[in-house]
Amino acid sequence: MAIPRQVNICECWARDGIQGEERFIPTEIKLQMINQMVRLGFRRMEATSFSHPKLVKQFADSVEVLKGLPRADDISYIAIVPNQKALERLLDCCQAGYGVQEITAIISASEDHLLANLERTMEEAKPPLAKIVRQARSEGLKVIGCIGTSFGCPLSGEVPLQRVVELTDWYLEQGADYIMLGDTTGEANPLQVRRVYQEMLGRYPGVDFIAHFHDTRGMGLANTLAALEQGVVYHDSSLGGIGGQPSTKRPKYHYGLSGNTCTEDMLVMLDELGVDTGIDTIGAIELSRRAEEICGREMLGHTTRSGPVRRCSSQPLGASALKPGREVAPALLLWQPEMAGASDAQVAEDIIRHALGKSWPVPGGLKLKLDDLDIKPWPGQRSVLLTRFTVLEVGERPRLQALCHKSDGEIVFQGPLSVTFTAG
Amino acid sequence: MAIPRQVNICECWARDGIQGEERFIPTEIKLQMINQMVRLGFRRMEATSFSHPKLVKQFADSVEVLKGLPRADDISYIAIVPNQKALERLLDCCQAGYGVQEITAIISASEDHLLANLERTMEEAKPPLAKIVRQARSEGLKVIGCIGTSFGCPLSGEVPLQRVVELTDWYLEQGADYIMLGDTTGEANPLQVRRVYQEMLGRYPGVDFIAHFHDTRGMGLANTLAALEQGVVYHDSSLGGIGGQPSTKRPKYHYGLSGNTCTEDMLVMLDELGVDTGIDTIGAIELSRRAEEICGREMLGHTTRSGPVRRCSSQPLGASALKPGREVAPALLLWQPEMAGASDAQVAEDIIRHALGKSWPVPGGLKLKLDDLDIKPWPGQRSVLLTRFTVLEVGERPRLQALCHKSDGEIVFQGPLSVTFTAG
Repeated sequence: MAIPRQVNICECWARDGIQGEERFIPTEIKLQMINQMVRLGFRRMEATSFSHPKLVKQFADSVEVLKGLPRADDISYIAIVPNQKALERLLDCCQAGYGVQEITAIISASEDHLLANLERTMEEAKPPLAKIVRQARSEGLKVIGCIGTSFGCPLSGEVPLQRVVELTDWYLEQGADYIMLGDTTGEANPLQVRRVYQEMLGRYPGVDFIAHFHDTRGMGLANTLAALEQGVVYHDSSLGGIGGQPSTKRPKYHYGLSGNTCTEDMLVMLDELGVDTGIDTIGAIELSRRAEEICGREMLGHTTRSGPVRRCSSQPLGASALKPGREVAPALLLWQPEMAGASDAQVAEDIIRHALGKSWPVPGGLKLKLDDLDIKPWPGQRSVLLTRFTVLEVGERPRLQALCHKSDGEIVFQGPLSVTFTAG
Repeated sequence: MAIPRQVNICECWARDGIQGEERFIPTEIKLQMINQMVRLGFRRMEATSFSHPKLVKQFADSVEVLKGLPRADDISYIAIVPNQKALERLLDCCQAGYGVQEITAIISASEDHLLANLERTMEEAKPPLAKIVRQARSEGLKVIGCIGTSFGCPLSGEVPLQRVVELTDWYLEQGADYIMLGDTTGEANPLQVRRVYQEMLGRYPGVDFIAHFHDTRGMGLANTLAALEQGVVYHDSSLGGIGGQPSTKRPKYHYGLSGNTCTEDMLVMLDELGVDTGIDTIGAIELSRRAEEICGREMLGHTTRSGPVRRCSSQPLGASALKPGREVAPALLLWQPEMAGASDAQVAEDIIRHALGKSWPVPGGLKLKLDDLDIKPWPGQRSVLLTRFTVLEVGERPRLQALCHKSDGEIVFQGPLSVTFTAG
């Protein structure tokens, strides 16, 4: 099945991601993170929640966050609005000129989950929620109708698709702009996701569905792919794969991992699938490492540790390809004594060109200056050499730190080198 | 596409899983783990490696492990045999009556990886490997022809499928019984996996392919599903999702996560997809927690933390459904004052039956004895109650520890209760 060539990712870190963090993250840090997201190309972001600040302390600064957000015409911020009071607080912000573009209204397909989450039955939850959806729409906000536990409930198990259909009908009657099928605690599996989205997209042509998976059981990426292959183009994720039940005094209805599908892992997968996200994947990996510093622990991203899949770039090596602090993946060469050339420096240069060539086509006009490189005597015998680089400086004359060692760990050369690019 | 209804999982923990562990795991502990695997239903297991004990110290006890393995006609153990000397050591064990049923022969589709891993070029690697395959076959062992880096190389990027085809042809000429496409450092993506297996299964009808993915970038389950949907029935995994480059003095050619696809997460996914593995999934989750104790750290399984997806059993609650130490997932009830009945104990019993009923159909003949339960005065107002259980004792009269609390954390009842099953 052909998959969409382009998708729209909503980065949920600043809301769903951090709502389970017990430690309050200062407003200024939240805003730094969102600013970075914008620079990396994210255009839809959950910005905050208007949950009662006493219930979810992490969002006691929701108004301050909205005041500080970087704004642009193509950026859409989203706030969670769990009740009427929350909507009114948000609308005050909108009127004062620092609102959001979208709100998320929430209900659950499972009544047990609805009771655990909002302490309301289905019958009790619908009328006030309908009022929120209609009022937000009339104030010019787009509304995401989120249906939690669409794929299963941690408290009661299977959830009939019929309930999801009924709530979709109901949301659309109230005027919702998007329907989010929330896999709130990661019950979904890929075959189920295909069935559900095939059914829903067939039943509701023209409705924009948002795939929102949690990676509770490691199936987040498989489920994202399954939704994508049915044609879903809106996907939610969080840096580091964190998130889940908000940190409140209420007892946990679910134990274990409960984070959103991990943004950086999703981006790497989408890059590999040839799907355009408009987002700088390596930058997102770096931002996730920053998020780990903020939260004070390693999070759940795989590519945060492992980096993206190694590829030789289709673009020749140039100054713009080198970013400060970034590592160039290691390259291997089988060195044999007959390769020893006229000078040590010449052999080192050959090895460096070979190693850079594993990451980019090396243009003819590339010059290397190795004066500061410390070159040891060449190994007298055949050796497997591993060469790796770190980018020290960028600009017209970038500098790299090089390290070349034998498979027994002995260093063959190391030190900084300069690169210049001339018309080749 | 219809997926196979039954798969054959090879548990790799005792070899690929622990080969990267720096601390030696005592032989007795390795054997305890393998004994447990057998009890849980695993029938193919990597048992050890005959790598040089000085190079990979973890397997210095390979002969002792083989001596101690539990044996049965339907169990197949696998050892890695990287060179001729290793094969001879293994064949000595076989002749002494404590061998294995299968060996894994290894080569890489990427020559860079082959050099990094075995310090041999393709041309150098093939003749001794051919000899190993032929000799092992002539001694009655089955041979798995492993092609490492089949989906990409951490040192050189893309790997042309043509090289995988050439090595498959070559292995089959030598008489290999299985072809394993190794995703050695997790470069594969699901669309690629589909393309590769579609091509390979079309080209080699009747050949048994083994899917061996590493979860380096979080795509292990998505890739497993992709291979499964092409018809691959042999799948490799490791408890806890650990594994990767062996711990030796050689420099790392790859950083970050590099473990095998996680067994317990794979089992939960396969259970959800309705695929029969023959393995006790909850038992595998528990065994993975034991493996974490052994390795001294939390590993990468999601379901190790989160448990399987909640389902109401199709079988009524009976003594055999209760296993010592296991938790029964929490259930929710909206309690309202008018529900207060004739006695506190009667209300508690109703709540307990309701809660158990979320996990199993409760048979008519089930009797509860609540004498030891500590029941507080009922909340005077409408409350959301969460009830959970832990199994204390099993047998004819199982005992459960119950805990019921309100959403503000206040306890409503707690303590042990006994269950008896009479003809209903």
